[in-house]
Amino acid sequence: MKDRGNYDLGTIHSIVNETPVCHVSFAPDPADPFPAILPMIGVMGSFDFPSASLDEPMDCYLHGYVSSRIMNLARASEQGLPVCVAATRVDGVVLSLTPNSHSYNYRSAVLHGYGNVVETKEEKLYAMQLITNSVVRNRWGNSRTPPDAAEMQSTVILKVSVVSGSGKIRDGGPHDENKDQSRDELTEKIWTGVMPLWETFGEPVSSPLNRVEQVPEHITSHRADVNQRNEEYAKSAATE
Amino acid sequence: MKDRGNYDLGTIHSIVNETPVCHVSFAPDPADPFPAILPMIGVMGSFDFPSASLDEPMDCYLHGYVSSRIMNLARASEQGLPVCVAATRVDGVVLSLTPNSHSYNYRSAVLHGYGNVVETKEEKLYAMQLITNSVVRNRWGNSRTPPDAAEMQSTVILKVSVVSGSGKIRDGGPHDENKDQSRDELTEKIWTGVMPLWETFGEPVSSPLNRVEQVPEHITSHRADVNQRNEEYAKSAATE
Repeated sequence: MKDRGNYDLGTIHSIVNETPVCHVSFAPDPADPFPAILPMIGVMGSFDFPSASLDEPMDCYLHGYVSSRIMNLARASEQGLPVCVAATRVDGVVLSLTPNSHSYNYRSAVLHGYGNVVETKEEKLYAMQLITNSVVRNRWGNSRTPPDAAEMQSTVILKVSVVSGSGKIRDGGPHDENKDQSRDELTEKIWTGVMPLWETFGEPVSSPLNRVEQVPEHITSHRADVNQRNEEYAKSAATE
Repeated sequence: MKDRGNYDLGTIHSIVNETPVCHVSFAPDPADPFPAILPMIGVMGSFDFPSASLDEPMDCYLHGYVSSRIMNLARASEQGLPVCVAATRVDGVVLSLTPNSHSYNYRSAVLHGYGNVVETKEEKLYAMQLITNSVVRNRWGNSRTPPDAAEMQSTVILKVSVVSGSGKIRDGGPHDENKDQSRDELTEKIWTGVMPLWETFGEPVSSPLNRVEQVPEHITSHRADVNQRNEEYAKSAATE
């Protein structure tokens, strides 16, 4: 894959926020040779400076299935559990003359940092709201809140204090070498270009127990906006 | 997230094969506390038993940007580099009465194994063909092959000998607790259900240098088949 480095904070944070599931890696056990990877929801935020913009330093709040093993690891170390958080969006398939110059258009962000379990009720509530609204915009205000004592107790949020981050973006069409591009018998036969790829939300499907007839605006507008953003990005990346 | 364990080989292998980008984790350096994650293309295959079906044990071939650091790590250890490979598909957003019971529908596969650089020309060719055809079906036979000596030289493929694997699948609608489901003032106000999510290929965009007027059949049929498979899966998972 052809890469273009991009280390702008705002870009890196946006890639994390727009990726439905991040992959979080850590070393589970000194005796285990294999690192572990968990798929988790990741959102950038700052409890101490809630008005911080995406261009400023932020923490990464993670939610998902967190085993007691991870919680113990995070609580056992003074700094926190060293983790790597990866967020990747695939935006298209780049088809060129020869297999070796094939590629994906993509956006990728990687963070390194120390993960700690969020312990105070205030910060946990802040993070739960952030995470719920990242799944569907304004969903927090449109569901039964606040969580009760048992729900607060059972919810585990990891907060990653970011030490370093990087981003890579690949867009545009194929780049073939002259040795192939100059051969008519190849270019007359092999189609080259980009097939854009994006994630799209389908029509919402009501639960059998649902009693609200019309799908509410916060869901329909989220669906429309995300679908438009994803499609426009992938299509424009194809011709960049 | 509510999980259902699924350890069937065929299911795990299919999730890896149908995920455009896998996340591969390893320990880069004993002095570095942080694991590394690389986004890579991953395909299951068996060079020794090329007719093996997805239900049988297989290796995982990985392609992507492989630094000389990783290659040296893989070559330095006798068994290979311990890696974790994760493949995750998000199939929908599950919206319930309370934030705590929100979830994703998803399919997730995780493999642990030892990564080694593929060294023989024959196996490298086998893996390159597998990987190219996983990006777009039959693309290998519709591009300039075989790779020349320089291309063979510059291509790095990692082969993971899988030691263990696991899979998880979550589908269906929301599951709310009785304490919420029995409250009319909640169920009359809060919409519950699933918003399916899937990856879709857009119309292929020709490169400015492309000279083949019609987008060939191997591309249009791949697009149509993958789009249909993804959409059907996400929609059926919503009502499962």
